[in-house]
Amino acid sequence: MKQNAALRRLEVIDKELVLLSHILGVLTWDQEAVPPRGVEERALQMGLLDRNMHELVASDEMGELLSDLGASDGNEGGATSLDDRSRGIIRNYFRLWRRERKLDSGFVQEFSETTGKAHQVWVRARSENNFSHFEPVLTHIVDLVQQKAEAFGYNDDPYDALLDVFEPGTTTAEVEKLFGVMKGDLLDILKQIGEKEHIDDTFLYNSYAQDKQEFFAREVLDAMGFDWERGLTGLATHPYTISLGSDDIRITTRYTEPSVTSPLFSTIHEGGHALYEMGASNERTKGTCLASGASLAFHESQSRLWENMIGRSRGFWQHFFPKFKALFPTQLDHVTVQHFVAAINKVQPSSIRVNADEVTYGLHIILRFELERELLAGTLAVRDLPGAWNEKMETLLGIRVEDDRVGVLQDVHWAMGELGYFPTYALGNLYGAQIMDTLQQEVDVGTVLSSGDFSPIRLWLDSHILQYGSMYPPKELLQKVTGAPLDTRFFKQYLTNKYVESM
Amino acid sequence: MKQNAALRRLEVIDKELVLLSHILGVLTWDQEAVPPRGVEERALQMGLLDRNMHELVASDEMGELLSDLGASDGNEGGATSLDDRSRGIIRNYFRLWRRERKLDSGFVQEFSETTGKAHQVWVRARSENNFSHFEPVLTHIVDLVQQKAEAFGYNDDPYDALLDVFEPGTTTAEVEKLFGVMKGDLLDILKQIGEKEHIDDTFLYNSYAQDKQEFFAREVLDAMGFDWERGLTGLATHPYTISLGSDDIRITTRYTEPSVTSPLFSTIHEGGHALYEMGASNERTKGTCLASGASLAFHESQSRLWENMIGRSRGFWQHFFPKFKALFPTQLDHVTVQHFVAAINKVQPSSIRVNADEVTYGLHIILRFELERELLAGTLAVRDLPGAWNEKMETLLGIRVEDDRVGVLQDVHWAMGELGYFPTYALGNLYGAQIMDTLQQEVDVGTVLSSGDFSPIRLWLDSHILQYGSMYPPKELLQKVTGAPLDTRFFKQYLTNKYVESM
Repeated sequence: MKQNAALRRLEVIDKELVLLSHILGVLTWDQEAVPPRGVEERALQMGLLDRNMHELVASDEMGELLSDLGASDGNEGGATSLDDRSRGIIRNYFRLWRRERKLDSGFVQEFSETTGKAHQVWVRARSENNFSHFEPVLTHIVDLVQQKAEAFGYNDDPYDALLDVFEPGTTTAEVEKLFGVMKGDLLDILKQIGEKEHIDDTFLYNSYAQDKQEFFAREVLDAMGFDWERGLTGLATHPYTISLGSDDIRITTRYTEPSVTSPLFSTIHEGGHALYEMGASNERTKGTCLASGASLAFHESQSRLWENMIGRSRGFWQHFFPKFKALFPTQLDHVTVQHFVAAINKVQPSSIRVNADEVTYGLHIILRFELERELLAGTLAVRDLPGAWNEKMETLLGIRVEDDRVGVLQDVHWAMGELGYFPTYALGNLYGAQIMDTLQQEVDVGTVLSSGDFSPIRLWLDSHILQYGSMYPPKELLQKVTGAPLDTRFFKQYLTNKYVESM
Repeated sequence: MKQNAALRRLEVIDKELVLLSHILGVLTWDQEAVPPRGVEERALQMGLLDRNMHELVASDEMGELLSDLGASDGNEGGATSLDDRSRGIIRNYFRLWRRERKLDSGFVQEFSETTGKAHQVWVRARSENNFSHFEPVLTHIVDLVQQKAEAFGYNDDPYDALLDVFEPGTTTAEVEKLFGVMKGDLLDILKQIGEKEHIDDTFLYNSYAQDKQEFFAREVLDAMGFDWERGLTGLATHPYTISLGSDDIRITTRYTEPSVTSPLFSTIHEGGHALYEMGASNERTKGTCLASGASLAFHESQSRLWENMIGRSRGFWQHFFPKFKALFPTQLDHVTVQHFVAAINKVQPSSIRVNADEVTYGLHIILRFELERELLAGTLAVRDLPGAWNEKMETLLGIRVEDDRVGVLQDVHWAMGELGYFPTYALGNLYGAQIMDTLQQEVDVGTVLSSGDFSPIRLWLDSHILQYGSMYPPKELLQKVTGAPLDTRFFKQYLTNKYVESM
């Protein structure tokens, strides 16, 4: 087939796959509403769509199209004469096709149905603090993931096969090395902070009316540039961002946490993801596979950059604190902006990852990375997981886990079969710090923040990162944006400036 | 292919089609939440699923399977040696296949996308009272429907082709004859009622707290036997029932109407539909195409039987009025149960179909039936529709339509491309009265109602109608249940008893 015709056909299939993935998004969004006995069929529905998508990706036709377009292991993007957009689409599908064709449809459907049903099992096990209820299905999932890794294949480590799904081009050895350095940095900074004075943050745990919290969160999203014509916010047990369409991007939060800033920072975090999804879908990319993040770590770089580097900064609160205090004058009586900023940046090891401060967060990830590798290698059995978890929490963070709800059962990822996902969260912090370092050279971030008009930051991120979606491999994009490969020293420098030198 | 193998294969395809139709249900349920710019893609998503379903139904494979199973025009259910369940599945698919294979995929997708987008256009036109905004898309839809009718084919009247989709086996000539008799009956009864004394129902328009209304509606649904493990209720602009899964059946209502009983009766109405969906999905039928109503008129017979014959009956309120009054003592001060029952059964011609009383309701349907036939025949242009509507409203109901919002723009059906649907509503009244007549011979309905435990009614309906789903053609099922073909005299008798003789 001629290259042009092959490309046109690939784009037709791509368009259909994007629609199907958005439909899957609708099923996911609605999942919490499903009445008890409907849960089982919802998993079958998702399994069917997953199977249909798999069959489109793994088809012989797809293999032929990609071959006609010149894609190969050494040249994933196909013919170099093609433009970046076309090469981006080809690369995405070559990687998917290479992987997916190694799985048969039955396996894909079983994987989807098993994880679909596991969700409710995990929810119940967590609420009842009963790991043994979750153990059988998690054992099944780990078995399926092992099969998947073997099917995908790898050079050095089975974990490579999983990691490459979420963070294209990054190996386990690289992560191990980066995390080794990062761990030393974090423990070092933690030690230095430990010697500082105690910060009183009890006022964050006062009672704050939810409607006012929602009003404030909306104002912050406005300032970030969240487009209400293309998205909305909702409530859910777990905060997340999801695309139900190119112009239908939704974020959730929960108001069940005791601290007033927990839902707020979760909104800013998800808002960062939403801005990426909104920016990645534009005239050039809309409706194609390119209209999403370059990788999960890149996605997380945006959410954590907005949540922590912007949302927990002094400049941000110089603008927003008077508004916040006007909403909650009683709760914040006598609290100064300096005190408030110190409180929301309080560093203290704790058991829950999503509530962890910036310094200890990485240690939560290292713990999961290490446990996942052992599960995958078969050197740790699922039944021994809670014990291993608690032991590592004590070694790494000095935390004695009270029970499994705030321990091994806290995260949804394993119930979803997503082993290999967690490292991208910590990589996101590293990417974010490196990107912020470049951004600060070109934009006067401090002034922008205290002005309350964040558009110069958003526009910079948009033109340097977001607009490309997944057109370039993550490593290439980072090089393009920051002029350097990933380096842990930017994150170390950021934390040191913020926590050791300034506070 | 051997019959057994063909049947097994048909059941696999059936299972997939049912899952896809439920997925389409999820997309529909979520439709009101979609942010403004996301509306267009949602229509594309629905178009894709419609096309995929069409391709499964209209495939050569389907034709071969049905032929192997002995299905033909003269014998839609296939080999008579097969059991009723198998023959029901075969009949459903033979009818679908015969129709759908006459449409190409492109047409199906265009139809779905056009009507998907038309929804928002209609919403806006209605809210702005601007028919001309809706006119172009409705013209396009009527054109597509005309093409569809021609493609499906018919013997006497193009309207037959549409009607047969919604009410299998019923012809336009039959409807015309039934409606002719019904029209005479209704006008006659209306005249007799007109001579009676005026009923004061103004207390229904007092202010009633929504949370208490919801509480009461939930109690009524409990009494009806609504299974909360398999369903839920929600709010929407338009009340409807939808299956998002065999065990995920949802109904909506709205609390924007001025009368307190409008949302209540709409809940009971949709509750009747939901009971049908719940009952039709059982051990024998779950996950198959049989797990739904025998026809739309059969479905409507259940909703209107519960809403009007039960919900607006004296017996029902003998049980429920004390509870209702306890919730709203001020609003119902001095109102007796007799007065209340008279008020909720007040007959008065009005412009809105869904709020119409039992007597004038049928006239609203006749109006639509007549206009649809003219639209389809091309003897009425879409631009002349509002004028024709208003003229008929005056002739039939003596109502001068104030504006198009409460006139030609009031219903969603035409925006959905569903010409041929309306007659099933009035047929539902006829079916319902005939079924109730039989039910009353076997169950002491009056005693059951005032006991507040409706299970004898529900169980009778379940064992005589619901459990079969769409296993039998509607005419055959009616004969099986009531021992007679459809006859207007039952509905006439019911209305006469209730409105002329008793009140």
